[in-house]
Amino acid sequence: MQTTHGQSSDPQREKQLLEKLRSHPELLERFEAILDLTESPSGTADQIEEWLVAEVRRLGNKAMQAWAQSAEEQAAEDLRQKTPRARVRKKRP
Amino acid sequence: MQTTHGQSSDPQREKQLLEKLRSHPELLERFEAILDLTESPSGTADQIEEWLVAEVRRLGNKAMQAWAQSAEEQAAEDLRQKTPRARVRKKRP
Repeated sequence: MQTTHGQSSDPQREKQLLEKLRSHPELLERFEAILDLTESPSGTADQIEEWLVAEVRRLGNKAMQAWAQSAEEQAAEDLRQKTPRARVRKKRP
Repeated sequence: MQTTHGQSSDPQREKQLLEKLRSHPELLERFEAILDLTESPSGTADQIEEWLVAEVRRLGNKAMQAWAQSAEEQAAEDLRQKTPRARVRKKRP
């Protein structure tokens, strides 16, 4: 759907996004921080750029951690399927 | 609401997020790309890191553009309010 403001909305796509973000609340927080910065009424362009660089860096770190966790879970799942009787020890935080 | 998977869902917060993303479809695309990468079943940690670095950089650029556009619109709005009879010329893309 297109409005005069060029906004579009795809319910299925938004639903998928929200589902993924519910599994990654730490990424949701970073996305919100970045969106807030883009709407910041204060700050010079240089300041905003500095804050954005810091924010996207934090996002990159969090995303990498999320990938590592998901890769670890996938590896554990693969092992469970190959050796159904093996008990996979959960890594504690 | 918390489930056993540690997922939480705050409808108001999700609604606000979607509203902001509808105004910034280019940021939505970047967020989706980053989320997809965190769930990538293929690739080594080094590859994923390289892709993530590239993706968050693109996000940073898009976010900076979004801020600049919003700052420009705000400046035009301020001018309109101060000098109601002035006609602000719209910058064409």
